[in-house]
Amino acid sequence: MTEVVTSIPAETIRERTEIDLIGPVLVPSNALYGGQTQRALNLYPLNGEKPLSDYPQLIRGILAVKKIAALTNRQTDELPSEVANAIIASIESLEANLPLDQFPVHACHGGGGISTNMNVNEVLANLVNRDFFQQPLGSYRPVHPNDDINLNNSTSDALTTACHFAIIEQWQGLQVAIKDLSAEFLLQAEQWQHVQKISRTCLQDAVEISFADLFSGYISLIERNQKRLDQDVEALYRINLGGNIIGRKGDCSEAFFAQVMPMVQQVMGNEKYEHNPNLFDASQNHDDLIAVANRLDLFARGLLKIAKDFRLMSSGPATGFGELHLPAVQPGSSAMPGKVNPTIPEYLVQCCMQVCGRCYSVQMTQDHGELDLNVWQAVVIHNLLDAMSCLENGIRAFTEYCVSGLRPNLERNQENINTLIPVLIRLKQKKGYSFASRIYKETGGDLEQILAYLD
Amino acid sequence: MTEVVTSIPAETIRERTEIDLIGPVLVPSNALYGGQTQRALNLYPLNGEKPLSDYPQLIRGILAVKKIAALTNRQTDELPSEVANAIIASIESLEANLPLDQFPVHACHGGGGISTNMNVNEVLANLVNRDFFQQPLGSYRPVHPNDDINLNNSTSDALTTACHFAIIEQWQGLQVAIKDLSAEFLLQAEQWQHVQKISRTCLQDAVEISFADLFSGYISLIERNQKRLDQDVEALYRINLGGNIIGRKGDCSEAFFAQVMPMVQQVMGNEKYEHNPNLFDASQNHDDLIAVANRLDLFARGLLKIAKDFRLMSSGPATGFGELHLPAVQPGSSAMPGKVNPTIPEYLVQCCMQVCGRCYSVQMTQDHGELDLNVWQAVVIHNLLDAMSCLENGIRAFTEYCVSGLRPNLERNQENINTLIPVLIRLKQKKGYSFASRIYKETGGDLEQILAYLD
Amino acid sequence: MTEVVTSIPAETIRERTEIDLIGPVLVPSNALYGGQTQRALNLYPLNGEKPLSDYPQLIRGILAVKKIAALTNRQTDELPSEVANAIIASIESLEANLPLDQFPVHACHGGGGISTNMNVNEVLANLVNRDFFQQPLGSYRPVHPNDDINLNNSTSDALTTACHFAIIEQWQGLQVAIKDLSAEFLLQAEQWQHVQKISRTCLQDAVEISFADLFSGYISLIERNQKRLDQDVEALYRINLGGNIIGRKGDCSEAFFAQVMPMVQQVMGNEKYEHNPNLFDASQNHDDLIAVANRLDLFARGLLKIAKDFRLMSSGPATGFGELHLPAVQPGSSAMPGKVNPTIPEYLVQCCMQVCGRCYSVQMTQDHGELDLNVWQAVVIHNLLDAMSCLENGIRAFTEYCVSGLRPNLERNQENINTLIPVLIRLKQKKGYSFASRIYKETGGDLEQILAYLD
Amino acid sequence: MTEVVTSIPAETIRERTEIDLIGPVLVPSNALYGGQTQRALNLYPLNGEKPLSDYPQLIRGILAVKKIAALTNRQTDELPSEVANAIIASIESLEANLPLDQFPVHACHGGGGISTNMNVNEVLANLVNRDFFQQPLGSYRPVHPNDDINLNNSTSDALTTACHFAIIEQWQGLQVAIKDLSAEFLLQAEQWQHVQKISRTCLQDAVEISFADLFSGYISLIERNQKRLDQDVEALYRINLGGNIIGRKGDCSEAFFAQVMPMVQQVMGNEKYEHNPNLFDASQNHDDLIAVANRLDLFARGLLKIAKDFRLMSSGPATGFGELHLPAVQPGSSAMPGKVNPTIPEYLVQCCMQVCGRCYSVQMTQDHGELDLNVWQAVVIHNLLDAMSCLENGIRAFTEYCVSGLRPNLERNQENINTLIPVLIRLKQKKGYSFASRIYKETGGDLEQILAYLD
Repeated sequence: MTEVVTSIPAETIRERTEIDLIGPVLVPSNALYGGQTQRALNLYPLNGEKPLSDYPQLIRGILAVKKIAALTNRQTDELPSEVANAIIASIESLEANLPLDQFPVHACHGGGGISTNMNVNEVLANLVNRDFFQQPLGSYRPVHPNDDINLNNSTSDALTTACHFAIIEQWQGLQVAIKDLSAEFLLQAEQWQHVQKISRTCLQDAVEISFADLFSGYISLIERNQKRLDQDVEALYRINLGGNIIGRKGDCSEAFFAQVMPMVQQVMGNEKYEHNPNLFDASQNHDDLIAVANRLDLFARGLLKIAKDFRLMSSGPATGFGELHLPAVQPGSSAMPGKVNPTIPEYLVQCCMQVCGRCYSVQMTQDHGELDLNVWQAVVIHNLLDAMSCLENGIRAFTEYCVSGLRPNLERNQENINTLIPVLIRLKQKKGYSFASRIYKETGGDLEQILAYLD
Repeated sequence: MTEVVTSIPAETIRERTEIDLIGPVLVPSNALYGGQTQRALNLYPLNGEKPLSDYPQLIRGILAVKKIAALTNRQTDELPSEVANAIIASIESLEANLPLDQFPVHACHGGGGISTNMNVNEVLANLVNRDFFQQPLGSYRPVHPNDDINLNNSTSDALTTACHFAIIEQWQGLQVAIKDLSAEFLLQAEQWQHVQKISRTCLQDAVEISFADLFSGYISLIERNQKRLDQDVEALYRINLGGNIIGRKGDCSEAFFAQVMPMVQQVMGNEKYEHNPNLFDASQNHDDLIAVANRLDLFARGLLKIAKDFRLMSSGPATGFGELHLPAVQPGSSAMPGKVNPTIPEYLVQCCMQVCGRCYSVQMTQDHGELDLNVWQAVVIHNLLDAMSCLENGIRAFTEYCVSGLRPNLERNQENINTLIPVLIRLKQKKGYSFASRIYKETGGDLEQILAYLD
Repeated sequence: MTEVVTSIPAETIRERTEIDLIGPVLVPSNALYGGQTQRALNLYPLNGEKPLSDYPQLIRGILAVKKIAALTNRQTDELPSEVANAIIASIESLEANLPLDQFPVHACHGGGGISTNMNVNEVLANLVNRDFFQQPLGSYRPVHPNDDINLNNSTSDALTTACHFAIIEQWQGLQVAIKDLSAEFLLQAEQWQHVQKISRTCLQDAVEISFADLFSGYISLIERNQKRLDQDVEALYRINLGGNIIGRKGDCSEAFFAQVMPMVQQVMGNEKYEHNPNLFDASQNHDDLIAVANRLDLFARGLLKIAKDFRLMSSGPATGFGELHLPAVQPGSSAMPGKVNPTIPEYLVQCCMQVCGRCYSVQMTQDHGELDLNVWQAVVIHNLLDAMSCLENGIRAFTEYCVSGLRPNLERNQENINTLIPVLIRLKQKKGYSFASRIYKETGGDLEQILAYLD
Repeated sequence: MTEVVTSIPAETIRERTEIDLIGPVLVPSNALYGGQTQRALNLYPLNGEKPLSDYPQLIRGILAVKKIAALTNRQTDELPSEVANAIIASIESLEANLPLDQFPVHACHGGGGISTNMNVNEVLANLVNRDFFQQPLGSYRPVHPNDDINLNNSTSDALTTACHFAIIEQWQGLQVAIKDLSAEFLLQAEQWQHVQKISRTCLQDAVEISFADLFSGYISLIERNQKRLDQDVEALYRINLGGNIIGRKGDCSEAFFAQVMPMVQQVMGNEKYEHNPNLFDASQNHDDLIAVANRLDLFARGLLKIAKDFRLMSSGPATGFGELHLPAVQPGSSAMPGKVNPTIPEYLVQCCMQVCGRCYSVQMTQDHGELDLNVWQAVVIHNLLDAMSCLENGIRAFTEYCVSGLRPNLERNQENINTLIPVLIRLKQKKGYSFASRIYKETGGDLEQILAYLD
């Protein structure tokens, strides 16, 4: 579709002209990307939004797809070995040293990710032509972005597959952060297991428990959420590479379709990869990704709760709950000397709020999907990657700078568990609810008198 | 469109058969509603969902529209006086004594509210024919639901207008509840203005303020939200009656369009009513209603915050903030004697969560609108009415059973304002931030020593 | 805590007085419920909101818990057999014939569900005392709501467990509805497998597929969502009965804790029931329920997409896509004769919007949880039950009145697949992307000329 | 609080050590920022998140606050003229040439924005000391970040005020973009006013209207939303500068409070600025900002609807609505030659989804506020600024690359308005609903026969 123009007029000496179905387009003469990328740059200026280059996991994912396609096309003899080898070598050189500035398209441009796919296709075609066939940038001969790089894969299946690759990669890091948090809570639970504290329901005094009890609940929540995420990330090993355009068999060659999945397994080093059982579905819907977003949202809300618990338990120092000391990591006020605030839990809270908002955008893409292809994948993938890295940041800071240095206020906790309500509950456990109620009433709630009944 | 069948077979003796474009339909023989209502009942069983009859404000709104239409049609000679008068008299008898069971359609059926409109049209046609023209139910002669009751108004403009009427009515009650809450806070602010308390930022001790200061902030929030709501409800006085179908002039008679708005003003007793400046817009979008939902959501979140403040300030009794006593309105636990929980603030919190969810459904209708008519109005109106009554309930309970009986813990508040941080801040105000910081450091935060520098 | 007053003054002849820690309260003399229920009625008037009685699944769930507790308490000798038997018999009589009017408390009252639990406790105590021990209502002797009915279970664990029971029950019906929809789509896919249609990406013409292809994608989506829901409902077989108050062991007897789970399995007829691995967590968080809500939300958005596809494919009849005929189930307009609208898909859309809103309220409860007990369970359970029944309604109507009667427009679909773009794509598949592009350009997109290249 | 260390050990030659209440911290020796900024950098690494420097509007807003404070402090003699002048001059030099890399703190760190405020305070103190008093960076003498730059303003009121400044600035640009879109639609409405098209309700054929009618509805929606936004941005001219910490008078000097607002008006060149009527409220709540977010969300949903209308009306080219040609701006598919997609409307859709997600995060901050200071302002301001710039981008691209080049398909529109349903409606307008229904039934919907009745 794109063709090089042979005689470049003098005034565009630092730009080259490429031509596509729409017409000519000027591209910086040394750009590895080409006309379609440039059109996207012209149409969708960033103005503070993020470009594709901010998501190297995703670029790596697309490159992996293109490598898998080239390897498979070589194997099925659909690409001459020489060409396929050149493509593969170019991809590997990019993987080794990714020139991020060559992937400048707006992360959320329109059209179902076409410009993202073409950005990678064009960079690869130009690299191969320049480095292996001594052709000028923009020549697209012998290797063409659509005919060769895109051979047997298209925007729809290439990007969806790359999204799965990217999330699976990103999940590794997040998962470690979650496990570290859980392990840190376990350490703290062991360290403070002998410290009893008061529990509260409706923020009112209730029975006594230990810090180990409390933290065991946190650990359980964290691990359950990790398991949920793990389970839903697991579903992403089902991919639709070969289900080009809208999931129809026959838009890639039969041989390609048959051989691509073993190639995926080999290149990605993971035998779990398999074809989606229904490729029309895989094109119509991206809800396997949205399910991950929902899990992130749910986990974020759980962490938000824990972070707010930390603020509450460390409230004071004098007029709050004061049962937990958090490490002082920075001065807490520009106006109030001596004030130390729970800034790390607050950072986590804010990360969680960010996660919820990003996942909200992701959710909207499902009900706004239509017919044979959900075209809002850009919203899905970038918000999902953002949400994951944001959550990872929050969890890491919370683990390292807060949980690891927590210290119960021993004296305060000891006092708390010997106040009216926990004592009454001990009485109730000995003598029943209505007996304890009666004594409470008769003594007017006087702690000393009630204690007498406990002996 | 609907026609009575003359010979009813014996086996349907307690049902009558009506026929429309789709075919025959059996209707209970004594039902005031007719075949289209019955079709909706058959298609959309309730199974726990709410029927139209749960929203008498909305039925009253539709009846008002039908009355306005009949009055205008009489005035423009499009309905014979005899017929118009009979319709008007029937509406007034319904208004006086609304037989809710005759409005049984599912509140959220499909089709842009057609069944709701037809339910009212059919009830009216049947009533008029039976009571004024001695015709059997289901005869639809001389008065026809579509030709006469619906004359010069259609589902689209009739229902949208009725929604505006219903929200405006519902707002009166909610507004009073809001004003009562604000007034109650003012009373409490005056009563406790001499009680100083500690303020907190990041849940950490900060400077002292009075309960009057705190409550004045609450009052200001409440009044601002009330004003916002008032402002956006005000926009609902712009209605589209006469903009039948999709806002085109000419789908009602010119005379009707010219005379209907004075009639609205007269019947509703309010001169503020006027035509939407653009009737196509009024059909394409219902965002004047959604704007009200957004305001409710925002207010609900503000109230949720206040309710949670109350829980926090009354936390304890022994191991929490304990600076505020709330009235004990019910035993707080089935298992812990003596426990009294902040159940009224918690009820308000839950009402607010309900409001947010309902408003969320409302929001979705805007981006899922399309082309010339937003057909999701049922979701808008019923969630909006539910959100308003739910919020009103929560506010009333909070005002009457909680705010009105609050009582600061005088001793605790007195202690709180003489703790480390507020004392340090007094020192800083006298001598500057770095002086106070230095003293804090040198004394190791010893309150007695720091107090010495304040003298 | 509640005690009968022996001499009832004449003026309250139709009410009885009960007394609790808060003071006396008047209860209708023939009410099976008692003072705490009455307090809730006084504090939380319904005003259009739903009472507990609107959720018989939940009442049945609580009754099951109370029965399990009585059976276990009998087994551990903590309740005299005579008392336990009477309780069990009373529960079974309620199960056989549930007097809904005796469960009138507001579904969303404050205090973590205390009034809901006490409503059931009081009804049971009164029934037992009246029917088995000939004591007057309100006597609470020999059987006391808190000491006996609530023995070894408390609001926290009793209600959480009952919520799990209720959702598991409700899921059975929803699951059947989902499977029916899936089965119906399979029937339609088979019936119309030979009808080719055009697919679209970005709403623009793309390649041809069959109706079987399209519907196979729908089926795959539906089944995946069903599986997700199933998986997350499965987690609800972990319950916390015996983890009274906040999950601490020791708030019920050791014997009760040891024996309660086999009893659950027996009474519920399901061996999958087991204790939550961490009971503190089970009290701190209800996210197993919220996870179900997230799954419902995700499914609802998928169904919303399918319903909108139906509207789109059946748009017309003359000026739209017109490739699908839907059954005409009701007249489509009060003003436009002959118009038939896709009201059933629209009903499904609206149900889905309701689901999303209800699930949104549910989500908020997690981040607003705090410390040892999440007290917002009422918001969780009622919205969840509403969302499930609403979705079930929508799915059933869609299956029965729409999908089952669909009929492709054979002629239109045939025309569609022979238009420009699908023909060009056939050319591209034969000769490559840039060849097809060139021909497109050279012919100016003339269909006849392009067809020539295909021969 | 921060003090320079005189003897720097050799190994930290390229870093300087600063000391605060927490202890020593290493800062790059040439950094204009200081120890508190550095602590934030250490605690909150970016990892893909945005730094303060991505929000120059906000930095400018804070600088404006600091300038206003210095000017006022000079006027009230609280700062020596020499010092105040130096501060003011330094601010002006920053305003002229903002060194973004000196504002590296994480945009969403914890602690209510303390590090953001201190970043600016430290840069200013260092600049003044270095440039006007020949002191080394990190000396904080004679000018101290807290004592002097922060004098009479604190994080709470300084940042809130700066947020208002930033949003008001950002709104100018967005407002112009909105007006341009509206103006472009007006041009198109005029240009195509004579082209009649079919309208649709429930996606089914309805009556005919003109493109001018349709677009007039769009314009009305756009203008109404702009007005709503304008109204709520207007509320931001109420600011709380001087309401330091939590809104209490007395935390800044009386003189400062009295003179600061005229100074704001003068520096900002706008007399609308005034104090919030209640400064406690202004600290407790940021809902004036959230109200703007709600308005953005509502507008985004309206634009999403319009963008989707465009996709629908231009669907085809052969098998869709095909009534509108959009400019072809880029090739539409990497696999399907000749395909041109509505990528610009799709970009707008995605921008709108981003806006909704960002506004969702903003909303959460209100219900998670507590007591005397809402500390989640970072989430509010950055998401709000992102949402505004994202929406502006989407609107600009839509206006320039799509709306401005639209072209109705004259032939198709002409055909559409003479199809069955619009013809039947003409008949109904002449002869009534039941007559038209009857004819429709009798003729079996045959267009020719029905047309005969119209003559």
